[in-house]
Amino acid sequence: MKFITTLIACLYLTALPAQDQPVADQIRAIYDQALQNGQAYQWLEHLSNQIGSRLSGSIGAEQAVRWGEEELNALGLDRVFLQPVMVPKWVRGNFEYANIESSPGNTINVPVCALGGSIATPSAGIRAQVVEVSNFEELAKLGSAQIAGKFVFFNRPMEAQLINTFEAYSRAVNQRSRGAEEAAKYGAVGVIVRSINLRLDDYPHTGSMSYGQLPIQDRIPAAAISTNGAELLSSMLKLNPNLRFFLKQNCKNYPDVLSYNVVGEVKGTTHPENIIVVGGHLDSWDLGDGAHDDGAGIVQSMEVLRIFKSLNYKPKNTVRVVLFMNEENGTRGGKKYAELAKENNEKHLFALESDAGGFTPRGFSFDSDEMSFQKISSWKPYFAPYQIHEFSQGGSGADIGPLKDGKVVLSGLRPDSQRYFDYHHAATDTFEGINKRELELGAAAMTTMVYLVDYFGLD
Amino acid sequence: MKFITTLIACLYLTALPAQDQPVADQIRAIYDQALQNGQAYQWLEHLSNQIGSRLSGSIGAEQAVRWGEEELNALGLDRVFLQPVMVPKWVRGNFEYANIESSPGNTINVPVCALGGSIATPSAGIRAQVVEVSNFEELAKLGSAQIAGKFVFFNRPMEAQLINTFEAYSRAVNQRSRGAEEAAKYGAVGVIVRSINLRLDDYPHTGSMSYGQLPIQDRIPAAAISTNGAELLSSMLKLNPNLRFFLKQNCKNYPDVLSYNVVGEVKGTTHPENIIVVGGHLDSWDLGDGAHDDGAGIVQSMEVLRIFKSLNYKPKNTVRVVLFMNEENGTRGGKKYAELAKENNEKHLFALESDAGGFTPRGFSFDSDEMSFQKISSWKPYFAPYQIHEFSQGGSGADIGPLKDGKVVLSGLRPDSQRYFDYHHAATDTFEGINKRELELGAAAMTTMVYLVDYFGLD
Repeated sequence: MKFITTLIACLYLTALPAQDQPVADQIRAIYDQALQNGQAYQWLEHLSNQIGSRLSGSIGAEQAVRWGEEELNALGLDRVFLQPVMVPKWVRGNFEYANIESSPGNTINVPVCALGGSIATPSAGIRAQVVEVSNFEELAKLGSAQIAGKFVFFNRPMEAQLINTFEAYSRAVNQRSRGAEEAAKYGAVGVIVRSINLRLDDYPHTGSMSYGQLPIQDRIPAAAISTNGAELLSSMLKLNPNLRFFLKQNCKNYPDVLSYNVVGEVKGTTHPENIIVVGGHLDSWDLGDGAHDDGAGIVQSMEVLRIFKSLNYKPKNTVRVVLFMNEENGTRGGKKYAELAKENNEKHLFALESDAGGFTPRGFSFDSDEMSFQKISSWKPYFAPYQIHEFSQGGSGADIGPLKDGKVVLSGLRPDSQRYFDYHHAATDTFEGINKRELELGAAAMTTMVYLVDYFGLD
Repeated sequence: MKFITTLIACLYLTALPAQDQPVADQIRAIYDQALQNGQAYQWLEHLSNQIGSRLSGSIGAEQAVRWGEEELNALGLDRVFLQPVMVPKWVRGNFEYANIESSPGNTINVPVCALGGSIATPSAGIRAQVVEVSNFEELAKLGSAQIAGKFVFFNRPMEAQLINTFEAYSRAVNQRSRGAEEAAKYGAVGVIVRSINLRLDDYPHTGSMSYGQLPIQDRIPAAAISTNGAELLSSMLKLNPNLRFFLKQNCKNYPDVLSYNVVGEVKGTTHPENIIVVGGHLDSWDLGDGAHDDGAGIVQSMEVLRIFKSLNYKPKNTVRVVLFMNEENGTRGGKKYAELAKENNEKHLFALESDAGGFTPRGFSFDSDEMSFQKISSWKPYFAPYQIHEFSQGGSGADIGPLKDGKVVLSGLRPDSQRYFDYHHAATDTFEGINKRELELGAAAMTTMVYLVDYFGLD
């Protein structure tokens, strides 16, 4: 590409009626601030590289709480406070080890990691045969006769043909979240789950799993295997169905520990009793540094209040940034926030979460009544010059979900989803995977949405 | 992000009238083929890693021509042929060297590279004082009295607040393309141009420059300096306006050499005389391996015909993939293709180029009459499920530009532009910067557009 002499025409700005120009100008000022003088990228550099991974109950999570409180205080907000919350503490311990033994003594190492919440193997590890399945129906069909004493290997890939990768994720993730619970019913000794990512690579992706109501003595270890490892194991099983798999993992569940949501607030000038929330989650998995999941959402949310301050915009309603704790393995922070909101009779108008990576924003999703969705959709012309096109009805975010009461409008930032699962819950989720402009555009889009909700209201 | 239980609703598919379902199904099949069974990524791996950089006149460019011809032949097209074209040959020679001398003997190295087409410095290099300017107006104001015998340092950054980075590029690039010509008029000994990228990093970005009508004896060397280098030089100049800059570069212009466009064709079943072109450029700059610029466009264009073949879709009109030579420093291939089309009285309906990187596609731009633009815009509902939203009027692509005759519709694929200039013309433009899905989505979008033009026509 050399250079384009004809600028690509901006077809959208002209669509706004003249009386809305001050609103359009304010949005332009928000974007200028985010792109020319943004703080999100520097904040994320610190959170990722100086603090690093922040699994609930870890020292990193503690440091992140202190850092969030300090940075919000430095913004000169009206109020910064912590909400104590008890969170699960799961610790990986020494890294996991696994190999495929095609004949006695003939082994190939494969990259694995324990799933979050899993128990350890016995200290000598487990060596056993492997049964490969795609789903729980196949599992049930095989039954105890074929499964008892073996590993169950869940190997259903994400579906590449789905355009929205989150849809592909939601269709694959039950292997990870409930695979151990299901396989244990048939006497499996452990489960090996294909990593929930689209790319063929060597990184195992962790994530939460649950044993449901399974009695403690029936629980079995659960590990993720990299996609390349899964392909290898599957092809070796075709050649030799009797091969054996060795897994050793060292993770442990501890009693719950005290942690915190971090909340910063600017009081509303006309309706201080109405609350708008913007947030992400401060905790992360332990393999990378959680730059996309969800450091990006944290710094973008903080940026909303920083931009308001820098533009001297005084919201009519109270605007809160919430750095939620423990989204990854418990959502305790989100539940605690909603519980306290109810206890304190707080009236929440709108809650917006960013928890889908720091990529170019494409739109927003809304969990709301039809009228609010229509009203918000009427603001699309304000977003079009910034290439935000997709307003959909559906999800919002795990941390704000507990606020749902039939009145509050819940919303999620929807960035381009193509690269997210290359990073998600893996050692690859580091600051190097972040593009500064993409991150900043997300912050600007969120600030714009909060501004419009505050300015026009939702009635 | 844990997992989303509510799938994001696809609001668009329902907007299609029932009779268009077979068309929607065909498009779905195109996307399935591109995403589940695509060839683009493997092709690009070969072009980037096995062949590498492909500057016009280089061995890499020769190898790329042979590779393109072989791969198109392997697709079993109706015709594959080469179009001979004479191209410029510019060779970088040994890598460049530069430093800033703040006091005699006290130097700091800075990363630079010669701009494409520049002359070398004398073999001992040039050491001289530096005058920093932002644009040609400042240059003219300073005049010969302040400039003669010095380097001119063009340091106008890309404007971060512009959403479309190509707009920011077009507003910055005249420093690179014409800076030497302008500075030479005032007796400058050389020009140092801030790299045309948005990120602060250590990579100089090359690109074409021209001396215009400047007599040979008046020409001066032109180099790009990395953005970090530019920031350093600028701040050191503020402390010491008399510092000196040293530049040594070793590039050379050779006589034109023979090269080729590579053309593959499937004959139309009902209107073989009507031609639809899809293409990119086979040449690249020499610092990286040209994965985004424009290996991506090459493999996406080839993928259009491969997908048609794989789906057994027989186009009504003749469809040609053209791998153009020499876009970067001459556009000779594009001019030759248009010249031959005219000579042979060929009727071109539509030409589509991909030359803006292998990122998630966002839309298309069109250089056409209003009626054709309206007709094509009526197809937007077919693209909406695939998140292609932006149909704009404006540019198309440098290689297909010479086809413009007031009848043919020219179009450019418009991917998300945020990351492009991190890679553009720099050592960073390598295969590692490519995301497989993003590349494939671009190929699918192009195939869809060519299919719709072929199926519905443009009348």
